[in-house]
Amino acid sequence: MAELQKSYPWTRTPLVACGPMRLIALSKLAFEVSNAGGLGFIGAGSDASILSAELEKVKQLQTSSSNFGSETSALPVGVGFLLWAGDKLLDDALPLLESYKPAAIWLFAPTEPQQLTKWTEAVRRVTQSKTKIWIQVGTVKDALEATKLCQPEVLVVQGTDAGGHGLEKCAGLIPLLPEVDDAVTAHCRAEGIAKPTMIAAGGIMDGRGAAASLALGASGFVMGTRYLASPEAVIAKGYQHAVLKAADGGINTARGKLYDTLRGTTDWPLHYGGRGVLNESHRDAEKGMSVKENKRRYDEALKLGDDGWGENARLTTYAGTGVGLVTEIKSAAAITEEVRGDAVSILKRTSSKL
Amino acid sequence: MAELQKSYPWTRTPLVACGPMRLIALSKLAFEVSNAGGLGFIGAGSDASILSAELEKVKQLQTSSSNFGSETSALPVGVGFLLWAGDKLLDDALPLLESYKPAAIWLFAPTEPQQLTKWTEAVRRVTQSKTKIWIQVGTVKDALEATKLCQPEVLVVQGTDAGGHGLEKCAGLIPLLPEVDDAVTAHCRAEGIAKPTMIAAGGIMDGRGAAASLALGASGFVMGTRYLASPEAVIAKGYQHAVLKAADGGINTARGKLYDTLRGTTDWPLHYGGRGVLNESHRDAEKGMSVKENKRRYDEALKLGDDGWGENARLTTYAGTGVGLVTEIKSAAAITEEVRGDAVSILKRTSSKL
Repeated sequence: MAELQKSYPWTRTPLVACGPMRLIALSKLAFEVSNAGGLGFIGAGSDASILSAELEKVKQLQTSSSNFGSETSALPVGVGFLLWAGDKLLDDALPLLESYKPAAIWLFAPTEPQQLTKWTEAVRRVTQSKTKIWIQVGTVKDALEATKLCQPEVLVVQGTDAGGHGLEKCAGLIPLLPEVDDAVTAHCRAEGIAKPTMIAAGGIMDGRGAAASLALGASGFVMGTRYLASPEAVIAKGYQHAVLKAADGGINTARGKLYDTLRGTTDWPLHYGGRGVLNESHRDAEKGMSVKENKRRYDEALKLGDDGWGENARLTTYAGTGVGLVTEIKSAAAITEEVRGDAVSILKRTSSKL
Repeated sequence: MAELQKSYPWTRTPLVACGPMRLIALSKLAFEVSNAGGLGFIGAGSDASILSAELEKVKQLQTSSSNFGSETSALPVGVGFLLWAGDKLLDDALPLLESYKPAAIWLFAPTEPQQLTKWTEAVRRVTQSKTKIWIQVGTVKDALEATKLCQPEVLVVQGTDAGGHGLEKCAGLIPLLPEVDDAVTAHCRAEGIAKPTMIAAGGIMDGRGAAASLALGASGFVMGTRYLASPEAVIAKGYQHAVLKAADGGINTARGKLYDTLRGTTDWPLHYGGRGVLNESHRDAEKGMSVKENKRRYDEALKLGDDGWGENARLTTYAGTGVGLVTEIKSAAAITEEVRGDAVSILKRTSSKL
């Protein structure tokens, strides 16, 4: 963590990051999280077309804040990429990364592990390693592979409770993070290399989950679903309202390929699925409705605007199993500060009682 | 928690419990956990036939220990029951519970919620409430229902990472426990009733998971899989060896009905499944092998004894996703003391760094 904080001098401990939710986490949300002492990520996804404008906006916002000293040589946000998109994404992104030098790139969902190496080497080269490499993993196997291939500065360890896309087969953070940590620590010791910082993701909604992740051995944590309920998220009101309303996510969300199928985002490697709140599309699919008819109704629902979302409607509400803990809209800065503060006070209070 | 400790004066904080693993957690394991300041459970399961002998053994063991003062009016272990077994189980168990007054009964998997009420009322009556009511839940809905119906002393909140049987659809502990806690706290405040103590289960293998569960708001935690690797567990060497060998449980375990089908334990309500380590039976089922042929091969494998277990063999290795954190055999007392101590020191160390 000490190493990371040297790279990100505006951040406070523990590090709070906002997940790079594709086309939802853009410059405003990412900047506000960083401006509150965290690290926000822009969700570029599989396409760099929005990236230039969003990075430029962050650069402008940065000049308006006194929170980023002159010692900050990197742009104080990160960018998340979906590596299955292929070489074109790297080709398009690389000049922008060279020019803006974001604090981090977050690499997720390669079609093959060598893509991780390709991105890592190219980005380190063009940014003189000012842009740090964050790699998202969900198994011990992938964590070891990423560490061996890339020696990333950060491993984002994502458990099964995460909203949106993640591994179809995956453990929760409570067993996953310690096992990843043990395996990666042993490998790095044996090889005499620096151990990546562990950042936890998946199901963290408030100070309690955050405190738990630190007890598991993480140096910081990511929230995604929680930031959906911020005014800075680029999200339809209907989607946001569905997030506030959903509860008991273990039974009222599911991970799978249905929502990708309906939305036409079918390029994901097969072992990933998207977790969303159960709705009419899901129930109809379970009852055996054809994909074609389900998609037709989905496309119809798109015309309803905000009314298209909800448990009795059809549009996709990607969210984690902890969605029931998200009950009000707060600014991204307030969320960042509250969860960071609560995590610390919960740990102090819990340990003082023992 | 204060209330619970009054009932269990031999226990230390935080409370460590051993899950009532059916026919694996018997008098010896349960007693050793309690004797080390925790609370062990005997896994009676769906049949009370072993119960009389096991409770009597605990009674004998208790007389050999100075850890249980005369103020202990209940037998210092609990008993776990599977409520789908029906009225006969209650009828058979009730005289034994009346006679031995175990510290707790752990109620799990009713066919209908009214069974919880029936058990709770009967057991409180015959034990003069000396036997405390622990009810296992895996959703916010079930937690509220159990609280309303029974006002149990304890809610065991089990997340999806648990080994053996649990809900097919379930969140991990990080989001689940806080949401259950919030909902139950609000209900109990509104009704002016005592709030059940929250005990966490599912994926806790060592001090890190234990510390995390306390940060989430639990007063104690349950381990199951971890105790499989103790000499006191009644478990075949082949099964135990398979537990020590398995790793990366997010991808190498799965929850489902296959192992129940092969073993012939098919009376579970449909929304429960058993999590076990993937093996040849699982792979053959995925490849489309008929249940009949798979079962024939399973029955053949039974003849192999200890060689019947393993990732390339066929017998069932029920275990949680954190099975990779279980790497050596230790006495149940050593596990209990180590995890309790580590949980405390991890919380103190983590909070002191913040």
